[in-house]
Amino acid sequence: RNLHSPKNFCPLPSASKYQDRQTYRIEADTFGELRVPADKYYGAQTVRSTMNFKIGGPSERMPIQVIKAFGILKRAAAEVNKDYGLDPRLADAIIQAADEVAAGKLDDHFPLVVWQTGSGTQSNMNVNEVISNRAIEILGGKLGSKDPVHPNDHVNKSQSSNDTFPTAMHIAAAKEVHEVLLPGLQHLHDALQAKAVEFKDIIKIGRTHTQDAVPLSLGQEFSGYVQQVKYSMERVRSAMPRVYELAAGGTAVGTGLNTRIGFAEKVAATVASLTGLPFVTAPNKFEALAAHDALVELSGALNTVAVSMMKIANDIRFLGSGPRSGLGELCLPENEPGSSIMPGKVNPTQCEAMTMVAAQVMGNNVAVTIGGSNGHFELNVFKPMMIKNVLNSARLLGDASVSFTDNCVVGIEANIDRINKLMNESLMLVTALNPHIGYDKAAKIAKTAHKEGGNLKETAIKLGYLTAEEFDAWVKPHEMLGPK
Amino acid sequence: RNLHSPKNFCPLPSASKYQDRQTYRIEADTFGELRVPADKYYGAQTVRSTMNFKIGGPSERMPIQVIKAFGILKRAAAEVNKDYGLDPRLADAIIQAADEVAAGKLDDHFPLVVWQTGSGTQSNMNVNEVISNRAIEILGGKLGSKDPVHPNDHVNKSQSSNDTFPTAMHIAAAKEVHEVLLPGLQHLHDALQAKAVEFKDIIKIGRTHTQDAVPLSLGQEFSGYVQQVKYSMERVRSAMPRVYELAAGGTAVGTGLNTRIGFAEKVAATVASLTGLPFVTAPNKFEALAAHDALVELSGALNTVAVSMMKIANDIRFLGSGPRSGLGELCLPENEPGSSIMPGKVNPTQCEAMTMVAAQVMGNNVAVTIGGSNGHFELNVFKPMMIKNVLNSARLLGDASVSFTDNCVVGIEANIDRINKLMNESLMLVTALNPHIGYDKAAKIAKTAHKEGGNLKETAIKLGYLTAEEFDAWVKPHEMLGPK
Amino acid sequence: RNLHSPKNFCPLPSASKYQDRQTYRIEADTFGELRVPADKYYGAQTVRSTMNFKIGGPSERMPIQVIKAFGILKRAAAEVNKDYGLDPRLADAIIQAADEVAAGKLDDHFPLVVWQTGSGTQSNMNVNEVISNRAIEILGGKLGSKDPVHPNDHVNKSQSSNDTFPTAMHIAAAKEVHEVLLPGLQHLHDALQAKAVEFKDIIKIGRTHTQDAVPLSLGQEFSGYVQQVKYSMERVRSAMPRVYELAAGGTAVGTGLNTRIGFAEKVAATVASLTGLPFVTAPNKFEALAAHDALVELSGALNTVAVSMMKIANDIRFLGSGPRSGLGELCLPENEPGSSIMPGKVNPTQCEAMTMVAAQVMGNNVAVTIGGSNGHFELNVFKPMMIKNVLNSARLLGDASVSFTDNCVVGIEANIDRINKLMNESLMLVTALNPHIGYDKAAKIAKTAHKEGGNLKETAIKLGYLTAEEFDAWVKPHEMLGPK
Amino acid sequence: RNLHSPKNFCPLPSASKYQDRQTYRIEADTFGELRVPADKYYGAQTVRSTMNFKIGGPSERMPIQVIKAFGILKRAAAEVNKDYGLDPRLADAIIQAADEVAAGKLDDHFPLVVWQTGSGTQSNMNVNEVISNRAIEILGGKLGSKDPVHPNDHVNKSQSSNDTFPTAMHIAAAKEVHEVLLPGLQHLHDALQAKAVEFKDIIKIGRTHTQDAVPLSLGQEFSGYVQQVKYSMERVRSAMPRVYELAAGGTAVGTGLNTRIGFAEKVAATVASLTGLPFVTAPNKFEALAAHDALVELSGALNTVAVSMMKIANDIRFLGSGPRSGLGELCLPENEPGSSIMPGKVNPTQCEAMTMVAAQVMGNNVAVTIGGSNGHFELNVFKPMMIKNVLNSARLLGDASVSFTDNCVVGIEANIDRINKLMNESLMLVTALNPHIGYDKAAKIAKTAHKEGGNLKETAIKLGYLTAEEFDAWVKPHEMLGPK
Repeated sequence: RNLHSPKNFCPLPSASKYQDRQTYRIEADTFGELRVPADKYYGAQTVRSTMNFKIGGPSERMPIQVIKAFGILKRAAAEVNKDYGLDPRLADAIIQAADEVAAGKLDDHFPLVVWQTGSGTQSNMNVNEVISNRAIEILGGKLGSKDPVHPNDHVNKSQSSNDTFPTAMHIAAAKEVHEVLLPGLQHLHDALQAKAVEFKDIIKIGRTHTQDAVPLSLGQEFSGYVQQVKYSMERVRSAMPRVYELAAGGTAVGTGLNTRIGFAEKVAATVASLTGLPFVTAPNKFEALAAHDALVELSGALNTVAVSMMKIANDIRFLGSGPRSGLGELCLPENEPGSSIMPGKVNPTQCEAMTMVAAQVMGNNVAVTIGGSNGHFELNVFKPMMIKNVLNSARLLGDASVSFTDNCVVGIEANIDRINKLMNESLMLVTALNPHIGYDKAAKIAKTAHKEGGNLKETAIKLGYLTAEEFDAWVKPHEMLGPK
Repeated sequence: RNLHSPKNFCPLPSASKYQDRQTYRIEADTFGELRVPADKYYGAQTVRSTMNFKIGGPSERMPIQVIKAFGILKRAAAEVNKDYGLDPRLADAIIQAADEVAAGKLDDHFPLVVWQTGSGTQSNMNVNEVISNRAIEILGGKLGSKDPVHPNDHVNKSQSSNDTFPTAMHIAAAKEVHEVLLPGLQHLHDALQAKAVEFKDIIKIGRTHTQDAVPLSLGQEFSGYVQQVKYSMERVRSAMPRVYELAAGGTAVGTGLNTRIGFAEKVAATVASLTGLPFVTAPNKFEALAAHDALVELSGALNTVAVSMMKIANDIRFLGSGPRSGLGELCLPENEPGSSIMPGKVNPTQCEAMTMVAAQVMGNNVAVTIGGSNGHFELNVFKPMMIKNVLNSARLLGDASVSFTDNCVVGIEANIDRINKLMNESLMLVTALNPHIGYDKAAKIAKTAHKEGGNLKETAIKLGYLTAEEFDAWVKPHEMLGPK
Repeated sequence: RNLHSPKNFCPLPSASKYQDRQTYRIEADTFGELRVPADKYYGAQTVRSTMNFKIGGPSERMPIQVIKAFGILKRAAAEVNKDYGLDPRLADAIIQAADEVAAGKLDDHFPLVVWQTGSGTQSNMNVNEVISNRAIEILGGKLGSKDPVHPNDHVNKSQSSNDTFPTAMHIAAAKEVHEVLLPGLQHLHDALQAKAVEFKDIIKIGRTHTQDAVPLSLGQEFSGYVQQVKYSMERVRSAMPRVYELAAGGTAVGTGLNTRIGFAEKVAATVASLTGLPFVTAPNKFEALAAHDALVELSGALNTVAVSMMKIANDIRFLGSGPRSGLGELCLPENEPGSSIMPGKVNPTQCEAMTMVAAQVMGNNVAVTIGGSNGHFELNVFKPMMIKNVLNSARLLGDASVSFTDNCVVGIEANIDRINKLMNESLMLVTALNPHIGYDKAAKIAKTAHKEGGNLKETAIKLGYLTAEEFDAWVKPHEMLGPK
Repeated sequence: RNLHSPKNFCPLPSASKYQDRQTYRIEADTFGELRVPADKYYGAQTVRSTMNFKIGGPSERMPIQVIKAFGILKRAAAEVNKDYGLDPRLADAIIQAADEVAAGKLDDHFPLVVWQTGSGTQSNMNVNEVISNRAIEILGGKLGSKDPVHPNDHVNKSQSSNDTFPTAMHIAAAKEVHEVLLPGLQHLHDALQAKAVEFKDIIKIGRTHTQDAVPLSLGQEFSGYVQQVKYSMERVRSAMPRVYELAAGGTAVGTGLNTRIGFAEKVAATVASLTGLPFVTAPNKFEALAAHDALVELSGALNTVAVSMMKIANDIRFLGSGPRSGLGELCLPENEPGSSIMPGKVNPTQCEAMTMVAAQVMGNNVAVTIGGSNGHFELNVFKPMMIKNVLNSARLLGDASVSFTDNCVVGIEANIDRINKLMNESLMLVTALNPHIGYDKAAKIAKTAHKEGGNLKETAIKLGYLTAEEFDAWVKPHEMLGPK
């Protein structure tokens, strides 16, 4: 292969754009030379990946959170390498460049898609190339020269894609959980909790099997949702200890060949310090490279969160259904025109976004599961796909929780007239008469009322089983809300 | 409806069997009278369910673990009800009958399938009817008379299907986890750990991307599996706190209507005492009836275990592939004829059973997820399906772990000649020369050896880069197994 | 290993049962001798499998449909082998024994579980052993002697587990589809179609986003369900052409080694003749052994059927919710006591069974998918798991369709008063005024009515936009049911 | 709410950017006025959606294929509306603007994410607004004036989101299948077929259970892959008839209220003409709005394709594993540096991309399944999520097929020396001796050779069972490739 082979030219949008040398430079990897856009920090291996993996387009790019996590890791590794003897001038330039990656200042320099090598090697090299070239620039060198900062020898020092990519996966996942998911869930929890308190004295009919049942308070109903969200956070947190374990230091197969004793521990400690999260070095690097069970476990927690969200959002849209021909117990906020024809038609669109997110997360979990189960020997090569899905699930659940809270939950109002009407019409209240007139007479009242469409009180009086005063004294829904 | 309507006759195998009164008795529920087999303790509601739900046949019966868990719960409830005033004579008979259910002595009296009402009401009534009739028998009464022990008023006292079925689900799941799954995983863990120790000095080629890579010890490779199984147990345990929460005391909608203050806590404490597991009353009964997130969470843990098992079993079958044309590094025990044609053909059948189990558990997890997400208002009505799948996953993983351990893992032997041959032929060992002759010369050696099919040592000498003595001094695989 | 090793004894329920020679016989396979229960036709390889695969217990047995399909296949193979020269006396005895297997007369002789070797070899040998011993018995020989009918040489002649098991899978799946699933779906289709006709003139409010929308007829609503079930059948049928392809004749790896030219075609034709289904020989046997994409495809069709069923059953339970506080447009049949407290509480239990089945089928589909994707080289070894799940899905959907039809659909009645009330109260009818008074005035009417809780007619008159006569002339729901 | 409420301002990147009137204009919907970026064609409802649904960011945008499909649909509707009386001047402007949308010229004007209302109403309005404003511009009007082209009255004439969004879903899915997926699969099929022919005379060892088995030709092995891909195309095609059915004409609930008789048929015919695909109007519009079973069915076909791809890619990476310590029968193309240390290390990266894609498609299928199962009454509100996943699966499979073909399959070479060596060493060839010396002696040869590590021929001669000449005459692998 050589520069003139068509395969060796980067397939960039406009051929004419690269007609003169000012728009590209030549870089090389061990497979030969390639044209690299002059305004990009990445190098030949990145360009080669764009040529070999034309799958899915820009929307399928490696999640930027992974790139930023790499920035953190590369900085941490440079700090530790400096301790172990790396030229401080090079180390400091790497640190500065890595910080820029971590801060999102170089996002345009990471064009690779998820659907590349399953070890994420090409994205690791993309990061190495960008940091190398940016560090060279900082130090006054020439882009693409690999001098004085080499992408492999210096930026990737003591590292392998096989341990850095999983490390970046765990950093990215933990940060997304802490920065997006858990705050989103807490926000939703607090709003639901406020509603549970606000609604504590509103007594309503319960529904089991979707059918009328004995009463509870609307606050009690919402307290169930509060508990689900509270446990959602607990579930996610209980999966984190194994996500905090970092593979860095395992290098190619987990043995740590070509690293120094202590490197793994120091890198983990530095990452912990940089992120404020309790990362530690993985106790067994073979497991950390060859299996990503920790991400499967986390995805399982996210799947459970999705299950909770589906239940809550479904309930709220059904309780808010109507305005005339649904259950109509809740009034949901009106956020946008539901229809150009019908005023008053509120569509529970936030519930819809949330339930679509829930379905997506459940699907993502299967993808993660399948990827996680198909590792072989010393390496799992479904890494980019797995982290893409985990990050997507965490982000969607976190964002949707905030959207659902701010645009729906906080504005929910109880339709008290409707709630009272349904509750008072309910035949289930007959249960309260059992101790006074016995089950059989109570049943007779309920059956008669059901058949004739009457209410319990009138029917009971008409049947001669009790007086209006007795009915009022005995049938007290607010006394049916707990054990005695 | 009446006795003569065809719908009101139990569709039992042989019509002639019930031609005279000695083979059946008449029992009634609120829908009318039905013939019940004379030798069965169940009653009309159970028979009615067999008529209305002819779905899937005997292999689809409610898992017997749920029935036994109901036995424990009904005993506990009877004890607490006795404290709260239930006639001690009745309570004691209920306790004795419930103990028989829990002990599996009455298994033939539970014919209902999973595909019934989604609340499990019919199985709760099946249990109530069996315990009632057995208690009546103990007390010298007449089967089907509901006197002196009524299935609803006494056996189901202070209970509803809506809180008892989820309670039985949690008891059954926790017991299966502790009695089958965790012991199975521990058994596998210990066997793998013993192999990791046994194999600690066997140096072998590593494989990443399924391709040759730098060496590690066979013990290190197995230590990754050990870690996966260790974490499998941790994952399952970390899901248990929420499984230990019992819904009992919530009755119909979670309010606890018709129970007494303290009933919930006492029942949970009694179940804990009977099982030796740390059950507590659920802090929020609305969540405990309307959502089964705890089982989704547990299923997610089982799904992660399945992922680990798939990896381990896949590795072992590939490492043991051959005997001539595979990787051949491991010798797996020969358990049965693999073929009538070819002696020496060992099929890794235990790996196959394990990986099939893993696939099933992953599928079960999706079923549990979908069921868990579709609860409405005060009740989730996918209960029987959910617990069937959770128990199936736990049982299959536990049993398969034992089978895989006893019939495969413990008998695995290292094929040391083969391991040494592959390791010594490996071009990856060239890595050790980098510090001595530089990367470029090392690369030249490897490329030449690959092209010519030669070995590293001969090629290196032929190229004049080093002597045989130098090669032997510098290329020492056993020094490539860790950081320095 | 020898006879005295504990591993070599069949772990049958009661040890004492086998204390004397009358209760067992000795049979041997190439691994040695084993005790076989005297009253069973199976032999040593079957017993050995029960020893090596103690996973899941009796409920996890190989589906009996697979065993029966093997009966058909073994008969067909014997017929063709007879044509090719197999001793007719032996062939006829094999045919008779195979027919008994196919007819379900020997079901007790197939104790093996699904979780065995992934090729199903042990179940193939179980069938070979049973047919061999039964044929020996027919011919007056001694059980276990393999003389004059040898399980491998005669019953398995020209066959391998690798082609017979997939053949039995396809036969079993096709029969279950035709005998259980499609008739069940047709039954449901016809009942829904009858309801669509019965309800064609009942005009009701439509609901989109679960919210009130413009009207349609109840018959139109049901016609959507009819279409879903009609397409369910089409989907299943469109997957069948590839299920009708049989692997028989491919033997060990797909080449057909040790068969005769024409064997494959003749066996397929014989199976087609025996079953009345259009089976053909698979055009590529390598694909037929190494992949089970046809079953994944069929499972995907079943998954789509499950999706349809979930929608239909969910709608029906919500439309039938109440009786007072739900939508209440449909009256569902009362099949069993819903509660001991509340008469009139009808639980939509058939909907619940159906939706649980749907969730299970969706989970089964994932298990089948994972199994199908993990074949290696010339063989997929997830066969027993895959067919178990496909058969389970087909059976559950077929049975549940019948149960749902007979116990729910046929008895559904429209609650016309309720339907009319909701329809007439609906604010959506205002749409009909747009052409007469313009959108703005129509909107004013609807908004005012919504705000004040009034009905459209009174509000419109009160606002002075039209007369009562005009309203009645212009707002005609029955003219809103189609294009103009 | 009013213009000054913070919620009413579009949350655009830089507040200062909108300080003067030149950077934004004011548009209104029925909820009030909003600032719209001056350089965008979209209007108030689009801006409002960006405010209410901040979920997932730009990578989660509505797939552009859906937007383009809307362009086709809106053009078709305008043509038919023109026939039915829409002012030709307006119709023509709409047609021109819609064509620009369909051609991808206005892609920057569609900022909405998938996670919005589940009916896709907001994206339908986004399209209506963009076409309206662009048509106004064409006609010399003022953006945002809705004059002379109104987004609802003219662009959306005779349409509802409820029928247009599913129509766009089907158009987009069918086009992606025909333009990306099927060509990709055909490309892969042809390359594999060429390899099957190229390799037809290379005899190699077969592997079942991952273990050595009887031989087949490498061409036969590849023919199995060819068959899988051929059937992949058939499966996708067999799902298309129901995807070709368009919901257009059903409007809000499926009745077709506010359309004209014939509108549905004419729109479908026009879309068919514009796309060259056989679209027809859906026979039952209620099903077409409330269920998206057709997309679930298509997703099931894609899932089956993914299963096939996983098998093929897995086989190829294992057959190409090595170069020294794997199976090594295939030489895969070297596309990029696999490692900076080890020349000759080819990582099967195209296989890895493909298997990651396969896992993603399997997960997507579960998301689609769950969304499809959760429709209620007259509308399924998981539409955007469902089509996102279907399009993603089709695109990834199509693109990955091309990448895998061009960068891997076409360059695969057989490692004939290795293949011959493994084949000739195989103990399985002993099978050929059975007819000559009997099974027992053949077995003795194989067992001895296995135990001693010898080859069959030498062992056979040493044991005195045959001569070298006899061995060579009898053991002919090329005669073991088919029936006789």
